[in-house]
Amino acid sequence: METFEVHILGCGSALPTTRHNATSQIVRIGNKQFMIDCGEGTQLQMRRSHIHFSFVNHIFISHLHGDHCFGLIGLISTFGLLGRTAPLHIYADPLLQRLMQPQLNFFCNGLKYPLHFHDIDATKQTVIYEDKSITVETIPLQHRIPCCGFLFREKPKKRHLIASMVEYYDIPIHQRANIKEGNDYTTPDGTLIPNSRLTTDADPSRSYAFCSDTLPCPNIVEQIREIDLLYHEATFAEAEHSRAQETFHSTAQQAAHIAKEANVKQLVIGHFSSRYKEDEQLLNEAKEIFPTTSLADEERVFNIE
Amino acid sequence: METFEVHILGCGSALPTTRHNATSQIVRIGNKQFMIDCGEGTQLQMRRSHIHFSFVNHIFISHLHGDHCFGLIGLISTFGLLGRTAPLHIYADPLLQRLMQPQLNFFCNGLKYPLHFHDIDATKQTVIYEDKSITVETIPLQHRIPCCGFLFREKPKKRHLIASMVEYYDIPIHQRANIKEGNDYTTPDGTLIPNSRLTTDADPSRSYAFCSDTLPCPNIVEQIREIDLLYHEATFAEAEHSRAQETFHSTAQQAAHIAKEANVKQLVIGHFSSRYKEDEQLLNEAKEIFPTTSLADEERVFNIE
Repeated sequence: METFEVHILGCGSALPTTRHNATSQIVRIGNKQFMIDCGEGTQLQMRRSHIHFSFVNHIFISHLHGDHCFGLIGLISTFGLLGRTAPLHIYADPLLQRLMQPQLNFFCNGLKYPLHFHDIDATKQTVIYEDKSITVETIPLQHRIPCCGFLFREKPKKRHLIASMVEYYDIPIHQRANIKEGNDYTTPDGTLIPNSRLTTDADPSRSYAFCSDTLPCPNIVEQIREIDLLYHEATFAEAEHSRAQETFHSTAQQAAHIAKEANVKQLVIGHFSSRYKEDEQLLNEAKEIFPTTSLADEERVFNIE
Repeated sequence: METFEVHILGCGSALPTTRHNATSQIVRIGNKQFMIDCGEGTQLQMRRSHIHFSFVNHIFISHLHGDHCFGLIGLISTFGLLGRTAPLHIYADPLLQRLMQPQLNFFCNGLKYPLHFHDIDATKQTVIYEDKSITVETIPLQHRIPCCGFLFREKPKKRHLIASMVEYYDIPIHQRANIKEGNDYTTPDGTLIPNSRLTTDADPSRSYAFCSDTLPCPNIVEQIREIDLLYHEATFAEAEHSRAQETFHSTAQQAAHIAKEANVKQLVIGHFSSRYKEDEQLLNEAKEIFPTTSLADEERVFNIE
C-alpha cells in the first residue's frame, strides 16, 4: 500500500525548549509531501530529518500565532536559494500574505518560483485542496484567534482485479478500468460475470486529522468520526485545567475524550507546554481515557497502515 | 578580570545545515550580554546554550539578509511571553523596523516592554553604543547590500591601588579615585608621592571585532589594528575564490590576510558555506597565513583574557 504517514518536525508550544521545536509536521501520502504549520526552525529540523525540500509543494497554516508560522519566511527564502522553480502553495488566513508581503518583497525579491497564497476561512468546514487521490478540508477549531485543523482523506480507491480471472475470461484491457470501478463484465458471448468474481475489495481510504490549537471542541467529532489518526493538541495536564481554558487550549484528557467520542483508531498528542520536563504525565492522563494514545516527538513518524 | 567572551550561537551561512545555525553570537562583557545578529533558530540555540534571555538588552544587526535577522521576530515575541519589562534596543538599518512593523503590530501586540530601534548607517564608522565601560562602533564592510561589522572596546581602565601603600600613607578614601586615574598624591605635610609608587598598571582594555558578511576589506585594517579578537567571515575555501568575489564574501585565506595586516591577537573564522562537510579545510588554509586562527562552532566560547 502507498505510504501514508505523519512526520513530526515540532510539537512544542509557544516557548522554545531544548526538547521540542515549534509546531510543524509533514504529511506524506504516496510521493506527495504536505506541510502543516511552519514554526521557527522548521527548515533546520527538515535538514536534520533529511526531508527533501523540493517535494514540499503545499503548506497549510492552522492559525497566525508565531509558533505556527515564523519559520515560513526562512523556508520560502531557502527554497529560492536552492533554485526551486515549482510553484509553492500556502493555505492560510488572508492576513498572513498581507503581513508577509513587505518581507517577501525585500528578502525574497526575484524568487524563481511562483508563490500562491490561498485564503482559508477557519470558521467553515471546506475542501481547500483536492487532487485525484486525496482531499484536504478545514476543521473549524476554537482558539483565541481564527484557527482551523486539517483533515486529509484518501478518496475511495479502485477494486483489485483478480489476475487469474482476468486471464481466464481474457478480459480486454479497455474493460478493466470499468471493472475496477465495481461494474460487472459481459463476455463477448453475452454471459454476465458479476464483479464479485473478478475483483477483491479496494484498499480502505485512510484519513488523518490535525487539530491544534484549540479548546476541546465537540463540534469536530462528527467530522473526524472513525478516522485512522488524530493529532490533537494537549498543551496541559489535568492539574492546569483552568489555565487550558483561559488560553483556549486542551488538556491531555480532553484530547483523549475527543478521540474517544469520535472513535478514531489512533491518537497522537502534542503542542506540549514548556512547563513539563517530561511528557509521560500527559500520555498517562490521556491513556486513562483513550488507551491507543501516543506522544508526538521530533523525528517520530506515525504510519497509517 | 571581568569576563569578556564571545559565545557562538550560529556560524553557518544562508542555507541551513545539520552542523551550523544561521549567524548569531553573544558578546558577554562583565554582566552584560550583547547579541550580534539573530538568524532563524537563535532563540532555540540560546535555550540549548542556557543563555539567560533577560540579560540580552542590545541586539546589533549587521545587515538585512535573512540568515542574519529572521530569528528576531520570534525572539521579540518570546521575550514578551516571558514577561519581560526591560527595554530592548535593536541597532540596524532603518529598513528593518519598517519591514518588521506590520508583524510586530500583529504578532507582538501588547508587549509589556519598550522596543527601541536605533538606525545604523553602515557606510560610516560611528560609535552606536556607549556606557561607562565600553563602546561599540560600526565597521563599514563591503557586501551586496549595506552591511557593517561591530567593534567592541573596553574604555581605558583605572590603575590599581597598591593596598600596602594606601595604608602606609593613610590615603583618605576621597583621594583614591583621583590616584586611580593616574594622579600623584600630596600628603597633608606637603610631600608629593608620585603615582607610580602608589599604583600598578591598569588592566588592558580589551577589544573584539565582528566582521561578516564582506569581501576582504583593506579599509578596516586601521580600525581593527591590534585588537584582541577578530571574528571574520570565511564563507569559502581558496578553490572557490571567484565564487567568493561574485557573492561579496571572503575566503579563509583572505580573512587571515586581514587578521595579519591588522596584527590582531586571535582570529576566529565563521559563516561557512553549506557546501563544506567539514570546516578543517578552511582552518588549515587560514592558518597558513595566520597561525592563531580558530574555527567558530555552535557552543564554542572564545574568551579574551
